[in-house]
Amino acid sequence: MRPQEIIAKKRDGAELSADEINSFIDGVCDGSWADYQISALIMAMFIRGLNMSEQDALTRAMLHSGEVLDFSDIDAPKADKHSTGGVGDKTSLIIAPLVAACGVAVPMISGRGLGHTGGTLDKLEAIPGYNVKLSKVEFRAIITKCGFAMAGQTAEMAPADKKLYALRDATATVPCIPLIVASIMSKKLAEGLDALVLDVKTGSGAFIQLIEDSKKLAQALVKTGTNFGVKTEAVVSDMSQPLGKYVGNALETYECIRILKGDIDAQTESTKELSLELSARLLVLAGVSENIIKARDLANTKLESGEALLKFQQNVEQQGGDPRICDKPEMLLDNKILQMNIKAARAGYVAGIDTLAIGNAVVAIGGGRSKADDKIDHAVGYACEAKAGTHIDAGDTLGILHCRNQDQARLVGGKISDAYKVVSENNHNQPQLIQVVIDMYSSASVLLT
Amino acid sequence: MRPQEIIAKKRDGAELSADEINSFIDGVCDGSWADYQISALIMAMFIRGLNMSEQDALTRAMLHSGEVLDFSDIDAPKADKHSTGGVGDKTSLIIAPLVAACGVAVPMISGRGLGHTGGTLDKLEAIPGYNVKLSKVEFRAIITKCGFAMAGQTAEMAPADKKLYALRDATATVPCIPLIVASIMSKKLAEGLDALVLDVKTGSGAFIQLIEDSKKLAQALVKTGTNFGVKTEAVVSDMSQPLGKYVGNALETYECIRILKGDIDAQTESTKELSLELSARLLVLAGVSENIIKARDLANTKLESGEALLKFQQNVEQQGGDPRICDKPEMLLDNKILQMNIKAARAGYVAGIDTLAIGNAVVAIGGGRSKADDKIDHAVGYACEAKAGTHIDAGDTLGILHCRNQDQARLVGGKISDAYKVVSENNHNQPQLIQVVIDMYSSASVLLT
Repeated sequence: MRPQEIIAKKRDGAELSADEINSFIDGVCDGSWADYQISALIMAMFIRGLNMSEQDALTRAMLHSGEVLDFSDIDAPKADKHSTGGVGDKTSLIIAPLVAACGVAVPMISGRGLGHTGGTLDKLEAIPGYNVKLSKVEFRAIITKCGFAMAGQTAEMAPADKKLYALRDATATVPCIPLIVASIMSKKLAEGLDALVLDVKTGSGAFIQLIEDSKKLAQALVKTGTNFGVKTEAVVSDMSQPLGKYVGNALETYECIRILKGDIDAQTESTKELSLELSARLLVLAGVSENIIKARDLANTKLESGEALLKFQQNVEQQGGDPRICDKPEMLLDNKILQMNIKAARAGYVAGIDTLAIGNAVVAIGGGRSKADDKIDHAVGYACEAKAGTHIDAGDTLGILHCRNQDQARLVGGKISDAYKVVSENNHNQPQLIQVVIDMYSSASVLLT
Repeated sequence: MRPQEIIAKKRDGAELSADEINSFIDGVCDGSWADYQISALIMAMFIRGLNMSEQDALTRAMLHSGEVLDFSDIDAPKADKHSTGGVGDKTSLIIAPLVAACGVAVPMISGRGLGHTGGTLDKLEAIPGYNVKLSKVEFRAIITKCGFAMAGQTAEMAPADKKLYALRDATATVPCIPLIVASIMSKKLAEGLDALVLDVKTGSGAFIQLIEDSKKLAQALVKTGTNFGVKTEAVVSDMSQPLGKYVGNALETYECIRILKGDIDAQTESTKELSLELSARLLVLAGVSENIIKARDLANTKLESGEALLKFQQNVEQQGGDPRICDKPEMLLDNKILQMNIKAARAGYVAGIDTLAIGNAVVAIGGGRSKADDKIDHAVGYACEAKAGTHIDAGDTLGILHCRNQDQARLVGGKISDAYKVVSENNHNQPQLIQVVIDMYSSASVLLT
């Protein structure tokens, strides 16, 4: 099949057959499709859409473009969660050890931060010595020893996605539900899971800002997981303000370890709450708990007993990190960092936070990447003090910028304070942390076009 | 402006500003847009369309991406014709000398054949010694000496089009009116013309097969020419059978010289007729003749007097070709060529000819190119004997294949005879050679979306 024929078909809005989609993905992997042909088809897919059977065929082709892991010899249900990406979104570091402490194996393949959103691998690398580049053998061994392992995608897993994602990023074809679904699910399905929970972010700091679009994405993800025989649910969660307190790699890891140690405050509460909710849903899907109430109880017990922290400490040791950070999370903080107060210009209530602007400010001082090969400063970041709904007086602290020097503070200080919408009367509804839950039944009727 | 922002705007169906289009074409020329970004935008343009001001901006940007010729020192109106491409479409070789014989300067920049359609440069190169690679100085000198010159596009003329056309060919984005218009007009407007006639082909051998689409393209071309201050008309002409008698480079040049010598028969009549019509329209637009009747008379006179042939002979000599071919056009024919009769399987009337199949058959035996760097066999081709409407008996000759060997005859003989639709009753309307004429008034209301 010539690339031009396949491109022309989607260009004119027709449905592609599974053979045509396979031929496309084969061409992506073996180089017989040129980059400009791939991007032409991707743009046609973006504008014309893919129906459910095309989306499944694309996911399947991308999944089988590389290695699919098989943990069937590990005598435990295998489960993972995936987030579509946000600011201060750090729940993986709590969920993985917590769910592992409940007897579920978690083979978590994660990514790095790009643009305003962070990535789990970067947060883990804030731990001195922590190694996220594991071989398949090491990955399996660590899961066997402590119930979970966290690593980057190998070159052998879903290689088509790597190529496609780089092209999509350069050609303005990222925000497209069928392409997002195929990208996420081809990687997650390669983990050989029994259960999967997807955390679909919505709001100013998410890739998809509108709740209706987030729900559509959640439905499509759940439908696809279910079609592939994995018990799948999605939670649409709020990203209209940073999750929890900290944004920035070391700071986020610090927040997670404090939560695992039971040290929670008003700012970090939402991180704990979302982690428990997602963990509980995984426990039900994995068959460990009968229902969500019992699952919440179990997760809460394992968190409060310190068993989740212990799992995390075992994992850090296995992956080459310094396990003392679990006793003294302050070790993660760099004492050469300047802490600059960001102050409120006027009194009132925090009605909303431009979360994209907060994420971009942290990227601008080195805490994230504009381009895939940018270096990261793990220590910089931002601590949210005044969360949405808080009353503040003029001069009160909105948050604290953790930066290297005064220049950085001048560069982003104004942008951060501008990100806060302060109003006189507190008549705004506070966004619910968990906005919608999509299970395999509520996803059943989704139609993508 | 980042490529992604411009791509996203057209992806979502918005109008691009002239600045954005200039930034795109600058990026095509200086390499700052990657091929995959160019093809993503081209696909978005294909599906979302361009309005008239975007199309003009694109044409202008592509035109000024390279050198624009200036023949204002030549004391004659400057005119040219351009065809959208067909099978046996050879009128340039008659029109250029004929119009030049009437006192018009013709700076004709032509192309090579690709796919089933032929190219003027390949036909000219069937003349021993003829050089189509002229410098700007040579091109101008030859126009001054004999009234017209015929050459290929230099690297300096409309370079953006070269890049874009190669990408469009590989990404199924060729048949799109605004992109076709910008491609054609950026090259033709670079010739520094006063008048331009466009021959838009319609039917089974044309790139655009449906008359309504051909009319839309004709209107868009005329509107664009007019917007750029060039007197422009378009003729929509029939390509539901090969034009004239011969298909194939040397054979077509042979047909043209015979017509210039006054040697015309039933099969070659349409080549003469279309050449006269297009020439006459150029003469009116160029201000040489008052109206189309007088222009036809003038053109006819110059053809019959042999002055057009003389011009052609002068040109062949100037461009390094053997001028004796004008006295003995048989010199163009290769006597090692086999002539194989293609016979009718049944009696009836020729109701139609799959002209694309005829063109492809000639390409298959080496008379054209599948890829831009294919070599051409100038001598092979096909002579149409039974044109549409002709009555034939079983075993009568439909046409004669000019080929190198029996293998070639076996390869395409059946495909050529299958291309003929033979019916029992002659109740089909014969296609008019000239189907529609679009002038600047009939193009005025065209809206592209």
